Amino acid sequence: MYVTHLECPKCQSRFNHRKLAQLCEKCSSPLLVRYDIKKIKLEFSKEKLLSRPYNLWRYKELLPIIQPKNIVSLGEVITPLIKLDNLGNKLGFKNLFLKDEGMNPGGSFKSRGAAVGISKAKELGVKSFAMPTNGNAGAAWAIYAAKAGIGANIVMPKDAPLITRNECAISGAKLYLVDGLISDAGKIVAKAVKKYKIMDASTLKEPYRIEGKKSMGLEIVEQFGWKIPDVILYPTGGGVGLIGIYKALLELQELDIIKKLPRLVAVQAKDCAPIVKAYDNNQKESVFWENAKTIAFGITVPKALGDFLALEAIYETKGTAVAINDEDILEYQMLLAKNEGLFICPEGAAVVAAAYRLLKNGWIKPNEKIVLLNTGSGLKYPDTVKINPPILSVNDEIEI
Amino acid sequence: MYVTHLECPKCQSRFNHRKLAQLCEKCSSPLLVRYDIKKIKLEFSKEKLLSRPYNLWRYKELLPIIQPKNIVSLGEVITPLIKLDNLGNKLGFKNLFLKDEGMNPGGSFKSRGAAVGISKAKELGVKSFAMPTNGNAGAAWAIYAAKAGIGANIVMPKDAPLITRNECAISGAKLYLVDGLISDAGKIVAKAVKKYKIMDASTLKEPYRIEGKKSMGLEIVEQFGWKIPDVILYPTGGGVGLIGIYKALLELQELDIIKKLPRLVAVQAKDCAPIVKAYDNNQKESVFWENAKTIAFGITVPKALGDFLALEAIYETKGTAVAINDEDILEYQMLLAKNEGLFICPEGAAVVAAAYRLLKNGWIKPNEKIVLLNTGSGLKYPDTVKINPPILSVNDEIEI
Repeated sequence: MYVTHLECPKCQSRFNHRKLAQLCEKCSSPLLVRYDIKKIKLEFSKEKLLSRPYNLWRYKELLPIIQPKNIVSLGEVITPLIKLDNLGNKLGFKNLFLKDEGMNPGGSFKSRGAAVGISKAKELGVKSFAMPTNGNAGAAWAIYAAKAGIGANIVMPKDAPLITRNECAISGAKLYLVDGLISDAGKIVAKAVKKYKIMDASTLKEPYRIEGKKSMGLEIVEQFGWKIPDVILYPTGGGVGLIGIYKALLELQELDIIKKLPRLVAVQAKDCAPIVKAYDNNQKESVFWENAKTIAFGITVPKALGDFLALEAIYETKGTAVAINDEDILEYQMLLAKNEGLFICPEGAAVVAAAYRLLKNGWIKPNEKIVLLNTGSGLKYPDTVKINPPILSVNDEIEI
Repeated sequence: MYVTHLECPKCQSRFNHRKLAQLCEKCSSPLLVRYDIKKIKLEFSKEKLLSRPYNLWRYKELLPIIQPKNIVSLGEVITPLIKLDNLGNKLGFKNLFLKDEGMNPGGSFKSRGAAVGISKAKELGVKSFAMPTNGNAGAAWAIYAAKAGIGANIVMPKDAPLITRNECAISGAKLYLVDGLISDAGKIVAKAVKKYKIMDASTLKEPYRIEGKKSMGLEIVEQFGWKIPDVILYPTGGGVGLIGIYKALLELQELDIIKKLPRLVAVQAKDCAPIVKAYDNNQKESVFWENAKTIAFGITVPKALGDFLALEAIYETKGTAVAINDEDILEYQMLLAKNEGLFICPEGAAVVAAAYRLLKNGWIKPNEKIVLLNTGSGLKYPDTVKINPPILSVNDEIEI
């Protein structure tokens, strides 16, 4: 274990990583986990990975778990990086890839944050937590909490995907719906955390889920043979996926494993695009987005606590930010399924549409290596597909 | 490529594997793919696997694809084999494992059959096929067909899981519902296949999906360090999973990679248990089950074409067959989620209940290595979880 301390990226205060930490006690910023990179550089080699399990736990030098016995696993896999030749040919990309996070336990990338977050919570002796969620994060934390024997209290908007309710409930979490947005759920959680003195597992209010999400970046680089793609596009709500990938890339750069960074692109929905608006105005932080609403429910986050970190990731990598409307989201979801057989979530579909827009306006070159991050499985969003198939009786015939 | 021919397991007729084949032209039995095992024995070594992709295509010597360019992939993974210590301790198992097929593309084990079946169809120049399905198989063949550019015509009972309709439709398959069972869908497909002269992709009416399902057996043995578990329990509808695993084990035995075989257990639903009934009566074939109905919809198969092969697998491995009622299925589905954080499909839950029954009656010993095969993700079955969470307003508080 190579963790040295927790660090505030705003005021640079340092905190002990052996105690449960939430936000910076001085300036209320999210905290980041820091590692002894010099020591890792001496002791780590890519060859060591060959004999390790084929999942995120293989990157143990860059993960915060001290004792392997504290690892809580639901069978994580290295999610596939799939070359999209059919769609690429159609749209004009020569090197288009999709990393399919729908292949995680629970069907979304949120499992990465939960796997590392719950494992570290177990290591720190946490017995119970509460969190607000747009659905998938709560479901992921609920299933990992069940395996760890930790109590989960989940508050989600009543409009969150129905299946995520089931995941929470069947795993034994205490589930509450709120007639509002994730920001409203957050207020209810904040009160409960204060009153009952339990862990607050809200996005970025504990430092370890970033470390889990970071593994997406590590995997992408390993999957490209320890090289970087040119561009990574990410659906951005709370922004932790983007922040995590950026942190992974910086650590790999410090380790001299990569030299350059890929350009990172934040993709949001047109009617909830605070990061895009901040980027367009060249600002370091976003402003609360009023009346947020999109079919890509997972990225309905009107104001993200880590907005300044997501924006830093974009600016420092010479990336950009793009907003997509709901009609385009549904169109590109179907386009990907029809051409590539991949049924992805609307958040992921926004990224496909964004890549095409950036290709058309010249920001992406046709031969660049492009990674589309699909954050979850389309199986969790049945309402995005409208169909009305014919109902036959046994003696009917079909025409082909 | 080591395929020598196709063989009828009933009348031993041989057929050319370089032509599209369906059932045995002489006796209408399903056909099996045969390999030059002696040659594989000379040329294969376990060490060769180390540098191969971590998915079913690593077992290429035992797969029927001639040209790698014909492989149609949606990002398959080696599905996890998860030790269930929490549930094991509770129920009295010391070595209880679950192989989670919900982690396949499309969320079910059917992807294995579709991956190899569609790849081989592409290799043989197939342009279009029709198939009846209880939902998951049709969805899996539809998504792989989309990637391959092959036309899919899918007929499923109107009671099949709703999400599988979406998967078919969004991937561009032609989808039909039938007011009846899979056997009724099969009759409609048979007429269409005859009329339009297209490939019949019905269960076991083409020889290659078994080869895909076989990979479950290969993975289990590799995951146990090239050793076998004592028992594998499998939810059994059409029986191809069980038949495939049995075929894998026999081939590994012929290759001298394993010596003994695990006992194979077919698990069915109490109200659709033709294989269990045949086993109880010591018969080689099953009888059509009237009024079949179970919440484990995927195994609602009143009469399987490969029943004799599934029964052979049970008899030859000294296995057994068990029927579980719907109440127990739902109870064990929840028990697994609460204790292990795994939200599995009802078919998989039947297997958990069956293992416990066999432990209680002494057929399974507490220290034996037991593999529960979960065939799909619970995400595809939202109706199996009944919940009614409280709806809060923004100013409400929660009690913990």
